[in-house]
Amino acid sequence: MKAIVVEQPGGAEQLQIKEQPKPDIKAGELLINVKAAAINRTDIVSREGKSGYLDNPILGVEVSGVVEETGQGTNIKPGTRVMGLVNGGGYAEYAVMPADRAMIIPENLSFEEGVAIPEVFLTAFQTLFWLGELQSNETVLIHAGGSGVGTAAIQLAKQFANANVITTAGSSKKLNYCRSLGADHCINYKEQSFEKEVLKATNDQGVDLILDFIGASYWKKNLASLKIDGRWILIGLLGGAQLEKINLMELMAKRVQLKGTLLTPRSDQYKANLTHDFVHKALPLFDNKEIKPVIDRVFSFEEVQKAHKHMEGNKNIGKIILKVD
Amino acid sequence: MKAIVVEQPGGAEQLQIKEQPKPDIKAGELLINVKAAAINRTDIVSREGKSGYLDNPILGVEVSGVVEETGQGTNIKPGTRVMGLVNGGGYAEYAVMPADRAMIIPENLSFEEGVAIPEVFLTAFQTLFWLGELQSNETVLIHAGGSGVGTAAIQLAKQFANANVITTAGSSKKLNYCRSLGADHCINYKEQSFEKEVLKATNDQGVDLILDFIGASYWKKNLASLKIDGRWILIGLLGGAQLEKINLMELMAKRVQLKGTLLTPRSDQYKANLTHDFVHKALPLFDNKEIKPVIDRVFSFEEVQKAHKHMEGNKNIGKIILKVD
Repeated sequence: MKAIVVEQPGGAEQLQIKEQPKPDIKAGELLINVKAAAINRTDIVSREGKSGYLDNPILGVEVSGVVEETGQGTNIKPGTRVMGLVNGGGYAEYAVMPADRAMIIPENLSFEEGVAIPEVFLTAFQTLFWLGELQSNETVLIHAGGSGVGTAAIQLAKQFANANVITTAGSSKKLNYCRSLGADHCINYKEQSFEKEVLKATNDQGVDLILDFIGASYWKKNLASLKIDGRWILIGLLGGAQLEKINLMELMAKRVQLKGTLLTPRSDQYKANLTHDFVHKALPLFDNKEIKPVIDRVFSFEEVQKAHKHMEGNKNIGKIILKVD
Repeated sequence: MKAIVVEQPGGAEQLQIKEQPKPDIKAGELLINVKAAAINRTDIVSREGKSGYLDNPILGVEVSGVVEETGQGTNIKPGTRVMGLVNGGGYAEYAVMPADRAMIIPENLSFEEGVAIPEVFLTAFQTLFWLGELQSNETVLIHAGGSGVGTAAIQLAKQFANANVITTAGSSKKLNYCRSLGADHCINYKEQSFEKEVLKATNDQGVDLILDFIGASYWKKNLASLKIDGRWILIGLLGGAQLEKINLMELMAKRVQLKGTLLTPRSDQYKANLTHDFVHKALPLFDNKEIKPVIDRVFSFEEVQKAHKHMEGNKNIGKIILKVD
């Protein structure tokens, strides 16, 4: 089968289409005839060789497609249209998916729309509700509002918690899009000090919850934006990992709850439980379009290098998709 | 009435006994004829003028004594022996206590024993269970095992969660005492690398929960001692507040849950709720001596300077008490 592998750790030019053996499935697994894969930042990290948790030589952690074969103990039928997270191997004609992570694609959605759901909506759902414990009518600060997780989080925070959503992005195009998804306050971080705008928008109280994809470069500003007893979920490091000169008293005085998290390296059982909860609570909202997957652009399989460069350019609003079949 | 005030922000020599007006009570408050007050680190911080949250010129955040007068809406009788947290003003012949923080002193305990309970047992109870969410049979690392909060936390963790308790202290005398309270692994941090001992004692898994009174100087070692998905409660800065460097990726990769906390500046309602939960669940265990207050030394009212210096010497095991009457 055709698959995309990394020649040498490095840039997008290292991505090559190679013939690879069609994978075998074990009990509890599905063989998926992949129709679309999504590009994720973790793929870029893997490509650069910085991360070792995926031992699969083929990149890609989420796919949509049609069930081709089913392992023992699964109760999903061949021919079913599914989407879900995989343990690597997504940029390929066939991929192995643990059956308890497979989600049936809502009828009104295409394969490209389906594959735009798992990683970002599960991450946003987990971060807002499982980790962030967002309560009704609380205020949440969602950075990178135009990103895949950002666009998912804005919609989920509005639909499930009627939250007061404050979001940041770097262009008026992205901010307008965030507003169209329901964000209440949209801050251009290139033109305004977001922490001052957050305090203005919250009557100097700060926010109950921060979804932080940025890390080091926003550290002080996030701390200033957070309410006393606020929760702060660190799920990305677009602004760097290295922090200098931290005063721990500031964390104590504000009684900050800081949680670091990564979704991809979590256990199969965790992902199955998260998937189950998401399917039960959130997936029905896609049926009647109260929530929608957000696609920036669809690339062909052969354009994978361009697709990676597009993500590295940070211009996308929503997901970047690779059409496989 | 006699009371202890701070002449100028500075050392223990600034503590002076002065005549001060007997305080008035409002609805919901009790006037306490103080029999004993406890020395807390927050008193030293206040004395040094580093902290502004207590506007009471008289030091002291916990007392025991006899109810002298009761404000409207309280249902506790004059003459009752009580212990509890106060909003400053504890080092005095009379102090004002919100009635919903007053705990009746168990019959078998003296005023000196009673006053050794509120701050450290409420802090340990809050940190282990409300913030740390300690579950049955989990492993907890309790630093400063010989301190007031340490001795309280060891007992509560064993009694309520049958936890595997690992504790650190700086002398064999303190470590032996921790063992007598039920600690399972006792590490002399002056002689051993505690993080290596923690990993040895946990089969290289690390602990589920850390009670961190130390801060900066233990940062890296605490991170190394924590299990993936572990909880880390920062409640003191005996080892400094200033961290030179942090790599946020380490917090994400380990999925650390870090909570900063301080008890004293929390709201009256929070303290009332915490007190209520503690009285309901933990106080009965003092009646039959399954849990005991730990007193290091009792000083007379006139010896307050010595009492502060004694705490600053870090030699105490358990609480340092000021006898008031």
